[in-house]
This record gives sequence, structure tokens and C-alpha cells, in this order.
Amino acid sequence: MIIVSDNLQITNPLINSAVDQMNPEPIKKLVNIYVTAGAEAIDINSGPLTRSPEDKMAFLVKTVQSVTDLPLLLDTSNSKALEAGLIESRNHTIINGFSLEPKKLISILPLAKKYNTDIIGYLLYPNSRVPIDETDCMNTALDLYLEFQKADIDDARLIIDPVIAPFIWEYGNHHNRAILSVIKNLPALLGFPVRTIAGLSNLSSGNIPLERKRLLEQSFLPMLSASGLTLALLNVFHAETMSVARVCKSLLSPEVFSWV
Amino acid sequence: MIIVSDNLQITNPLINSAVDQMNPEPIKKLVNIYVTAGAEAIDINSGPLTRSPEDKMAFLVKTVQSVTDLPLLLDTSNSKALEAGLIESRNHTIINGFSLEPKKLISILPLAKKYNTDIIGYLLYPNSRVPIDETDCMNTALDLYLEFQKADIDDARLIIDPVIAPFIWEYGNHHNRAILSVIKNLPALLGFPVRTIAGLSNLSSGNIPLERKRLLEQSFLPMLSASGLTLALLNVFHAETMSVARVCKSLLSPEVFSWV
Repeated sequence: MIIVSDNLQITNPLINSAVDQMNPEPIKKLVNIYVTAGAEAIDINSGPLTRSPEDKMAFLVKTVQSVTDLPLLLDTSNSKALEAGLIESRNHTIINGFSLEPKKLISILPLAKKYNTDIIGYLLYPNSRVPIDETDCMNTALDLYLEFQKADIDDARLIIDPVIAPFIWEYGNHHNRAILSVIKNLPALLGFPVRTIAGLSNLSSGNIPLERKRLLEQSFLPMLSASGLTLALLNVFHAETMSVARVCKSLLSPEVFSWV
Repeated sequence: MIIVSDNLQITNPLINSAVDQMNPEPIKKLVNIYVTAGAEAIDINSGPLTRSPEDKMAFLVKTVQSVTDLPLLLDTSNSKALEAGLIESRNHTIINGFSLEPKKLISILPLAKKYNTDIIGYLLYPNSRVPIDETDCMNTALDLYLEFQKADIDDARLIIDPVIAPFIWEYGNHHNRAILSVIKNLPALLGFPVRTIAGLSNLSSGNIPLERKRLLEQSFLPMLSASGLTLALLNVFHAETMSVARVCKSLLSPEVFSWV
């Protein structure tokens, strides 16, 4: 399981202002902190970037790459920003991501072919709603894979995100239990060792006491990990969750144990 | 997942001295504390009880029953002590337990038939060694089930303990990963919804810093829980582990979520 930092978000005022002023220093400093905290890949969540999207994403990618050679996830629904980021990228890069939403199939998916990069596909209906049951998730995965094949991209480039639902959402628990099977069973369904990713913060979104939010993360992450999750997207500042993530890696490692 | 307290152990000097003096008060007090901490069943680990085993186990069972009607696990390899406890038991009672070890097949297993109680079977070779791979565990489960059938006991009485290995043991990690599949796959192997139990404290036994011990527990318990473990045997004084256990129950509950 690879730990992906979800911390670099444009909704962070410090990052927003650094991007507005094209000032790399605050971002460099933050990325170094994420790496020290244990990030093994960096999600760059730029949001839709309504003004100067190309310049801003290019700036973000260049800035992050200037301090780390870790893999980058380019997390935007703006295809212009995305392409500008892909042109600039030197690190291993993952598009985050596409879904069955027609606009994303047209504007995002082909970029994975054009730039020969990994791409994350969300298990969502074309209207962006979440399939609840395991069967619905698996059918959605098949639809997604068919679109992926139509785009003529190598199987090895696909990473599937089964989309964790908020715990307090009416069907959240039901869906999240289904996800555990989905992650385990996707490789058999698609016939190749498809990688998976899950964004942990979604689980505890909503009005939940902070301590409960952390406990939810710490309890669900080992379940995801044991199901075979490839990439865990999380807040690397959550120290207890990071400790649990490291122990999960040790527990599930084929190597003889070590605390490293 | 039902939380079973592993706290009531004769190795605790307070309990040892109370048993020696047949003084019920310290034990009653402790059991009340275990229940308050969240125990949903009580394992009575009396050890082999070399002197007056019958009297001591009968005393223990009577004492615990005087303060709680939670299920009891009678945890001794002394069949005389065990039978004395079974005669005394009014609560739901589980024999903990038998294995393929010839002595246990002869002296322990028939007591489940005689007293019509649940019984735990350990997935161990006849020489008490741990089978490492999933296949070896599953073969051992079949052997165990054959012996169980020979004893003419109802399937519904069987609970299987796949025996968690110490993390620092050479093959511990390998075996413990196998256990997760074993727990999930046993019902399909045996053809009925066989229950499972695992003793969490074994995982962190050995020379490991305390904080790491707790992290190991907190990380492995959700994995066991997601695999479908029925009974988790653990130290109910480990508050963080108990919090995680409760969140696991919420996450995996078919009910709409609640924090209770």
C-alpha cells in the first residue's frame, strides 16, 4: 500500500494565495513537510481553476517537482489545466481522474493515451451518483473498463477508485462494506492485476466529532489494506492514521517483519 | 463481532491469590470493571490448576456468574477443572478449547457433547505446532471438523480459533495474513456458517515497545473484523483497541450507523 498525501489542496488558503501570486516557496515548504510525514506520492488538488488554469497547474507541477521526485496525482476536472500539468510533468504522473460522466470521457480520458500516463477511474454512474451494492459497483467497473479500452490505453495504466462514501450518509456503510469486496475482486473481474485507490477523508466527512473522525480512518484503513488496496489517499498530518498505515504495511508485507 | 475479555487470568497475582483463598470479592470487582470496559463475554483462564482444580474452577464460575450473565469461556486444559466448571455454569458457556492433540480429543472434546455447550477448536497440528499456509490451515480445519463430527456434536456448537501468531515470530506475518483468508473461507469449506474466534494479545507477544504492541492490535483487529471474525478475545483495558473494536462494529453493521 502506497501512501498518497491529500494535503495539497487549493482550498487551503495558504496554497490558494501562493498559487494566485505564483509564489513557489510556501508550496515547496509544505511539500517537504508532507514527504517528512511519510507521503509516498503527492496529490495536487487544484480544483477547477477558473482563471489561468494552464499557468497555475504548470506552476504547481513545476514547484512540487522542484523539491521531490515522488509520483504526482493531477487532481482536477479542468482538462486544460490537466494537459498543462501533464506537459510539465517529469515525475511519474497519474491523472486523477475520469468517470463515466460524458464530459470526462471526452476531455480527460484521451489525455492518458496522449501523454502515456496512469489514470484513475471513479466507480460512479454517468450522473456521478455512487453505485451502492457490490454488483452495481462491479457493473460500473465493467462499463468504465470498456470506455478505457475504447480509448486504446494499456490495461497497466488503469487505477480504479471505488469511491468511499461518508459514514453518516444513509447508504454509506452499506456501500463501504461493498468496497472491501470490490477491491479484492476487481482483478478477477477484469482479468489483470488492476490497481486501486481510495480517498480516506470522505469516510468521515460531515458533522462528526474529531476524535471519531480519526477512529473511523484508523479502523477502515486496515480493512482497505487487507483487501489489497494499492494506493491510500489521506491526510499525512493525521499522525495516528499514518502510524496505522505503516503497521498495516508491515503486517501485510511478504517480507520478514521490520519496523522501518 | 463480539468482544471477549481475556483479562481474567490466573497469572494475575490478584486473581491467583483470590482463587487460593476462595475469596470472591476481588474477582467480582474485576469482572464488573471488565463489563464496564465493554466486555460482551468473559474468558476464565484458570490455567491448568494443579491443586484442587474442581473446587477452584467451580468457585470461579460461581463468582463470575454472581455478577454477570454474559457468556463465559472456560479456558483450561485440565478436563477435571473444566467439567467442574461446566456443572456449575448457568450462563451461556463455551469450552476453550480442544485441538487435534490426542489428549484433548479424548478428555476435552466429549465434554461439549455431554454438557451440550459450544466448543472452540484450535487450528493446530496434533503436536500443537501452527500450520503456516492457508492450505495447511484449511486442511487442519478439515481434520478438526472430522474429529468434531466423530464426537457427534451439532455443527452449530463449533467455533474455530485459527491461532494468531506473534508478529515477531519468523513465520508470524505469513501465517497471520493466511488467517484473514481462513476466517473468510471456513464457512464455505465446512458448508455451514462456522463461527471463529481469535486471541489478539498473541500478535504482540514478545519484546516489542508498548506503543507498537497497541498499534499492532489496532491495525490487525479491523482486518480480522472485515474478514468476518465472530469473537475477538482481547484485553478490554486497552482503551484505544476497544474504541477501534466499537468502530469496526459500526462500520460493518448491516444497520444504519449509530455511535452506540
